Amino acid sequence: MKKILVTGFDPFGGEKVNPALEVIKLLPKKIGENEVRILEIPTVYKKSVEKIEKEIESYKPDYVLSIGQAGGRASISIERVAINIDDFRIKDNEGNQPIDENIFEDGENAYFSTLPIKSIQDELSKNNIPSSISNTAGTFVCNHVFYGVRYLIEKKYKGIKSGFVHIPYIPEQVIGKANTPSMSLDNILKGIIIIIETIFNVETDIKKSGGTIC
Amino acid sequence: MKKILVTGFDPFGGEKVNPALEVIKLLPKKIGENEVRILEIPTVYKKSVEKIEKEIESYKPDYVLSIGQAGGRASISIERVAINIDDFRIKDNEGNQPIDENIFEDGENAYFSTLPIKSIQDELSKNNIPSSISNTAGTFVCNHVFYGVRYLIEKKYKGIKSGFVHIPYIPEQVIGKANTPSMSLDNILKGIIIIIETIFNVETDIKKSGGTIC
Amino acid sequence: MKKILVTGFDPFGGEKVNPALEVIKLLPKKIGENEVRILEIPTVYKKSVEKIEKEIESYKPDYVLSIGQAGGRASISIERVAINIDDFRIKDNEGNQPIDENIFEDGENAYFSTLPIKSIQDELSKNNIPSSISNTAGTFVCNHVFYGVRYLIEKKYKGIKSGFVHIPYIPEQVIGKANTPSMSLDNILKGIIIIIETIFNVETDIKKSGGTIC
Amino acid sequence: MKKILVTGFDPFGGEKVNPALEVIKLLPKKIGENEVRILEIPTVYKKSVEKIEKEIESYKPDYVLSIGQAGGRASISIERVAINIDDFRIKDNEGNQPIDENIFEDGENAYFSTLPIKSIQDELSKNNIPSSISNTAGTFVCNHVFYGVRYLIEKKYKGIKSGFVHIPYIPEQVIGKANTPSMSLDNILKGIIIIIETIFNVETDIKKSGGTIC
Repeated sequence: MKKILVTGFDPFGGEKVNPALEVIKLLPKKIGENEVRILEIPTVYKKSVEKIEKEIESYKPDYVLSIGQAGGRASISIERVAINIDDFRIKDNEGNQPIDENIFEDGENAYFSTLPIKSIQDELSKNNIPSSISNTAGTFVCNHVFYGVRYLIEKKYKGIKSGFVHIPYIPEQVIGKANTPSMSLDNILKGIIIIIETIFNVETDIKKSGGTIC
Repeated sequence: MKKILVTGFDPFGGEKVNPALEVIKLLPKKIGENEVRILEIPTVYKKSVEKIEKEIESYKPDYVLSIGQAGGRASISIERVAINIDDFRIKDNEGNQPIDENIFEDGENAYFSTLPIKSIQDELSKNNIPSSISNTAGTFVCNHVFYGVRYLIEKKYKGIKSGFVHIPYIPEQVIGKANTPSMSLDNILKGIIIIIETIFNVETDIKKSGGTIC
Repeated sequence: MKKILVTGFDPFGGEKVNPALEVIKLLPKKIGENEVRILEIPTVYKKSVEKIEKEIESYKPDYVLSIGQAGGRASISIERVAINIDDFRIKDNEGNQPIDENIFEDGENAYFSTLPIKSIQDELSKNNIPSSISNTAGTFVCNHVFYGVRYLIEKKYKGIKSGFVHIPYIPEQVIGKANTPSMSLDNILKGIIIIIETIFNVETDIKKSGGTIC
Repeated sequence: MKKILVTGFDPFGGEKVNPALEVIKLLPKKIGENEVRILEIPTVYKKSVEKIEKEIESYKPDYVLSIGQAGGRASISIERVAINIDDFRIKDNEGNQPIDENIFEDGENAYFSTLPIKSIQDELSKNNIPSSISNTAGTFVCNHVFYGVRYLIEKKYKGIKSGFVHIPYIPEQVIGKANTPSMSLDNILKGIIIIIETIFNVETDIKKSGGTIC
């Protein structure tokens, strides 16, 4: 039995909903034999990571998957890399707007996702869920959380795997935004469940075969 | 009791499916008291209109709604106007590729949709289905059918209302097409049903109020 | 010796410049043996056409080429067709915002450009100026002018040829608009001169050969 | 007197030209008191970096600016960060296609540009050259060169500053590619000169003031 912590942000940037929050609310508590715990986090740069760390301390997950909204993208973006920079184009939900600041002074320049991003993309494709590997999670709170969690794991919680996926707007968010892509919440949910299954399964397969993930 | 004929094309341009055909197969045979008849048409410019005319003759619908795929668009496009030109960028499914030819020599330069396009958009928006009014249906078989049916109605079947909507790719069509928009078949179906309901209802409302549609 | 009247709008929609106005100011007064006259017109729907009609009356041109800005498009759009509808998404420069109104009640549903649009595209391509044939000039003042001039010519000034081209933003307009396409004023100017030359030359060629333009 | 080495790739991906190569050929040999040396490099992943290293050894530049083509982008992209991964979507010009390989096993996960990216963007904007800060240089030869040069400098040539900019297609490359953005070679050249001037000037200013660059 393995445990995954799945985080989703509250709404920001004038939106009424955040599809990341909507989708985690719909996740089952178990996938196969494995446990899924969800955590709502604020779109506030330092607090978001602090809240995740508390949950890591108490829940002791094997994996952390963070989910954020990428308005304007048409497919589920599986993020490859988080960079050590906060450079906010808009303010976060408590008015912070760091420009060109390091997230952690003693962190690496970047951390790669330790989730099996290529296997995830393959499984999503097989199941007709549009997806792509993305090489930038931006420089706002999403990248901050992706980087922050990977940093904490490297420093204090070795062995946990973590990563980030961006999801498109859901249809209700693009009403009045001419020709902006969206994805149905049903398909996003289906996609996130496939991602979680892949994380659990690939890990199991690899243990059997002795291989390594990307 | 009113009757609507809803047409959908077969696949073209190398695609394995056409979402227009997929969605009409899922339509109910009745919406309220009203009848819905579906018709698969070939992506072949003259035959498509001929097949629709036969069905108009035998079924005697009150409305004709034609549906086509617009790969790359992110929302349901409610077409405003059809123009009297065939100018094909690719061949149709029988190898025809007319360049700068009139569709009907004695037709108007253009015909406007006689469906309530603004009411349709309002209803789609209220129901969180992304949509937009489009001012071009292109110059391929979609525009040909839209124009051809409007022409036939003006010449021979006065009183029938007709129009065209373009729908996005469905998710399975964009696997491997990086960041191309799609819409779930569920939401397309929901949208087409709303469109048909609006056509029936607005007509009814207008009869009551004596108003006119756009 | 032939004469062409080339019109350009003043700025609208919060922009400080209109590339259409900037480019006509740079046109030479003669191209070959032929005369070029420019005319600034207001982005106000009825006044724009009225001002052009006065100039047609006094200058008696052989051709009228109207130029407008299409912010967001990446290439010079050679418009194929104007439709008989005003449906303004924003107000014009005097606050008018007609919704779903006909431009002229006794006009055709649409008028096609009587300029040689395919020859124009060929010449632009040969000269490495990005261009495309466009099937919609929108439903704002640009379409209004395109339609209005074609209408006037059909009704009162038979023999004059007219049409419309949309041009992209110039670079100074996209500063701060992330990743929005633009075209240098130099290349737009080069393009407009090629268009005018093509109009003059094709006409001449056709007279010789007895052919007709699209 | 300072020295900058400016590199440009040869054509790839079926293109006949590479605007990066075209633009470096047009650079002056001196900008102010400072020297500009250009270097054509092959679109071949290891050879490109090897050729630059040889030139660093012999020319001993103060700065290395590498330029690459980013087809489809509309503005000059000033790259922020290079990542330690080769993951080629297409083959390079000698048929190499590494998938998910590290560029240098003992390198950092990523290196940030040591050029003044924000000052460069400010200067480009002041001069009406469209630009943006980009957070991904991709995972092809461009990122490889950006990363490789930064790695070499960190390991062996401390003190040299280096970075990367992506430039759009030039107009001749988008003929026949419907509505794909481009930028005139004139404006790209103007932009690259401004970038070089900014690199020289900011450095000078900073030496005077004792400050640091992003």
